[in-house]
Amino acid sequence: MQTDSNGTSNVIDLSHHLSSEARNRVANPVKDILRVISECSVTDLVSMANGDPHHSLYPFRQVMYEVPSVQGPFDPVTSWRNGSGPAQTIHSYKDQECALSIRNAFPYGRAAGLQQCREALASFTNLMFAPPNHHVLLTLGNSDGITKIFRLLGEKGDYFLTDEFSFPSMTNCPLAYGIKWVGIKMDSGGIIPEELEKVLVKWDEVKLGRRPHVLYIIPVGQNPTGSTLSVDRRKKIYAIAQQWDLIIMEDDPYYFLQYDIPQKDSTPADPDEFIRDFKSPLIPTFLSMDVDGRVLRIDTFSKVLAPGMRLGWITSNELFHQKLADYTDSSTMPPHAFGQMFVTEMLSEHGWKVEGYCLWLQSLRLDYQRRRDFLLEVFRREVETTGYASVNCPEGGMFVWIEVFFEKHPRHITEPYHGGSPVAARTNTELLLKELFEKLMNIHGVVFMPSSTFAIPEDSLWVEDDRHLPLRDRCRFLRATFGGTEEIIEKGMIRLAKGLQEFFQD
Amino acid sequence: MQTDSNGTSNVIDLSHHLSSEARNRVANPVKDILRVISECSVTDLVSMANGDPHHSLYPFRQVMYEVPSVQGPFDPVTSWRNGSGPAQTIHSYKDQECALSIRNAFPYGRAAGLQQCREALASFTNLMFAPPNHHVLLTLGNSDGITKIFRLLGEKGDYFLTDEFSFPSMTNCPLAYGIKWVGIKMDSGGIIPEELEKVLVKWDEVKLGRRPHVLYIIPVGQNPTGSTLSVDRRKKIYAIAQQWDLIIMEDDPYYFLQYDIPQKDSTPADPDEFIRDFKSPLIPTFLSMDVDGRVLRIDTFSKVLAPGMRLGWITSNELFHQKLADYTDSSTMPPHAFGQMFVTEMLSEHGWKVEGYCLWLQSLRLDYQRRRDFLLEVFRREVETTGYASVNCPEGGMFVWIEVFFEKHPRHITEPYHGGSPVAARTNTELLLKELFEKLMNIHGVVFMPSSTFAIPEDSLWVEDDRHLPLRDRCRFLRATFGGTEEIIEKGMIRLAKGLQEFFQD
Repeated sequence: MQTDSNGTSNVIDLSHHLSSEARNRVANPVKDILRVISECSVTDLVSMANGDPHHSLYPFRQVMYEVPSVQGPFDPVTSWRNGSGPAQTIHSYKDQECALSIRNAFPYGRAAGLQQCREALASFTNLMFAPPNHHVLLTLGNSDGITKIFRLLGEKGDYFLTDEFSFPSMTNCPLAYGIKWVGIKMDSGGIIPEELEKVLVKWDEVKLGRRPHVLYIIPVGQNPTGSTLSVDRRKKIYAIAQQWDLIIMEDDPYYFLQYDIPQKDSTPADPDEFIRDFKSPLIPTFLSMDVDGRVLRIDTFSKVLAPGMRLGWITSNELFHQKLADYTDSSTMPPHAFGQMFVTEMLSEHGWKVEGYCLWLQSLRLDYQRRRDFLLEVFRREVETTGYASVNCPEGGMFVWIEVFFEKHPRHITEPYHGGSPVAARTNTELLLKELFEKLMNIHGVVFMPSSTFAIPEDSLWVEDDRHLPLRDRCRFLRATFGGTEEIIEKGMIRLAKGLQEFFQD
Repeated sequence: MQTDSNGTSNVIDLSHHLSSEARNRVANPVKDILRVISECSVTDLVSMANGDPHHSLYPFRQVMYEVPSVQGPFDPVTSWRNGSGPAQTIHSYKDQECALSIRNAFPYGRAAGLQQCREALASFTNLMFAPPNHHVLLTLGNSDGITKIFRLLGEKGDYFLTDEFSFPSMTNCPLAYGIKWVGIKMDSGGIIPEELEKVLVKWDEVKLGRRPHVLYIIPVGQNPTGSTLSVDRRKKIYAIAQQWDLIIMEDDPYYFLQYDIPQKDSTPADPDEFIRDFKSPLIPTFLSMDVDGRVLRIDTFSKVLAPGMRLGWITSNELFHQKLADYTDSSTMPPHAFGQMFVTEMLSEHGWKVEGYCLWLQSLRLDYQRRRDFLLEVFRREVETTGYASVNCPEGGMFVWIEVFFEKHPRHITEPYHGGSPVAARTNTELLLKELFEKLMNIHGVVFMPSSTFAIPEDSLWVEDDRHLPLRDRCRFLRATFGGTEEIIEKGMIRLAKGLQEFFQD
């Protein structure tokens, strides 16, 4: 155990979690020399050592971004969407004063990101999540961040843990180099801590190898189920992680899209007070409770600005931070200047400032909440009345999880458990789901993501209970986004209702 | 052997070059479903399947880039550098007409890059290199492209081939997962084809495992030596690659920085004629001769626009292209919208157009050539006259390779070969180089990259000749960039001369 310089938290040695690749990686000799050079005390040092083009040759003198104005009596997102709100121009200059100049943004940079941008994001992270003792490294968005962490921690043959319905765009990635997944049973509140513990307790290292040491979760508006982990579950999961020495990957793209949050009638004029009011009702993150340094939090601008931003950041303990920086140096290099310039300028006094960004986030969250409510309203009117499906009311994110009552279908089949694998399907739910998906698309012209796409395959190696209800029989859901327009949502729900009617009466 | 649809070239099966990771990678199930959806023939399809934020929520209405104007009676780079040239603004719009709109650039995109940007770069690639039958995939610059290819082809235990002095920022990367390097002997013209062949002929698969199947080279203005491979060497190397079934990684960031190229007195007014004149004296690329599909060419904007662009592209055969796209989907995702928008707009009729970009490249090349010539002139005047060093005259790139005559040093030691390892040092050249580097930095205030940083360690496993001169005894070089200002170059050379004088007289 070490105590950090502030004595505020304990950081434990977690180096045994590193993959052999991460452990074997040695510093790039060029960067080593550049470091030696940077430590040289000669004041008038002439460097002919590096390969940077001279900044006078960058063909950019100014980059301007026309964005919504967020300060005003209007609602920023609504007025921007309907074109009634004023715009504001954020500038990045080569030579004029700004928060991160073109001259400083376009050379080869340090792996963790440009200092100005990193400081802006670290300061935002501290303000929002107050992590005990962590460091910020820029990424190209969460796919990049998450897959880098998979490489950081994953050894061929390892099992990682995740929700039983998880996001295959991520879980698919490390399969190629031999990582396997164990899905943990969920309910409407997301992953069930007791089920997580059960898997760890029962894990047979002789049969299965090393006990899983990584838990990958999306704690707010989980993709695909839309569930959000309660504070109580978070505390339990963190305690389990401490007991069983798990690393938690907190993939949280929807954190600022939390709904049904108590909100004051008027926006305080004082920025600090406004920021306090903005953040205090948001759910505590795993990062904020991470006294051990076993949480890697993964943030992104994809859902709150735009996916094409390809910019995000990982907040982690110092060891993981350094290893991720080495890996970045050995792969993507730090992110593009454009995104770093925009974000730094946007958060600075020359742009929206932090409070302006929070105004945008608050307004965006209310916009998505209205979309969610609209979907739920149309669903109740059009779909629920068919008696063939129900929907959850997600507290965050962009998705609802529509449950279809396949047991009401005339061709539905159930067989009782006769022994054999407890994970083998005993119903034809999967087939009916596939049929429904195809009919909805080809006959009724509406598409959803079928839950089978997200199901982590079960294995009788760790599912041993014969009273277990196989996940394949619980693949009775459709994921629907409420990110679209009201027109799309309404049309989609009406078509779903019609499709269900026909499907169940065939 | 397959014949492509045009019948213009043969594409051979190169799938045995793929790493097990690349072979094991399966398509992301989400993308699979999205593909099924995209193939649905229903015209009025309502999609609630994906997780894209609606474009009306992107906080960008316009992005503007103030860049040099390249059309005119002036020299674009010179006038831009000294601030006398006019600027031009390139626009990316959300809703107004442009080559790649904000609306199309900011959603989640296809792994190979946005269609408009890919088409612009494919068209530029065809115009410049006329590859027989290849495909373009966008990258985040050459580090990203190269390290993705290492993963595509490299299996733990594999040996890859490269120049004996190579670029460690790249060669260092795959060491962490078990790739080893064999350096091929070079002379002033770069890698020596006969030496490449010798290694392949002599390779003992029983002792060393699989014969090397990948050759990584920088054919123009090689980093660090500044050498450029002649057409004759290129042809020989390609023939060797065909005979020994090598994949060639053509890392070519300096291709458009070729010097001493015959140039017409006046610029033709006709754009097509100008482009023809611009490209015809440039050296043929490996890509252009790649009838087999065994070349992966890696291009970037880092050296000709700015490193912070973090945008480049790989041109390869279809199989490698598809596998790289799958890997991109499983790691970084396609590049940021900003860079793709800028490049697409810049190359379009709304921006510089292709001929304008070529004007910029031509002007930039002449600018670097003047910097190179200035360095050589000062070197001859200040350094060569000391009698302790000489310099090459690179035909491309950003570096000169300064040879120091350590054998003239009073403390220089040579031992004759007495048997034992043929690669063990028999002189104290490395120590003297280190001492010189440190004295130049700490006493004389000038830094260069010592050649030891770039040396690929030799091994007696493949270097067997006792007449071999160990690379460690040939580490007698300093890499110097001529990318800096004249002031820096002049000061640097004067300090080097003084440093050498003192060093050799101690």
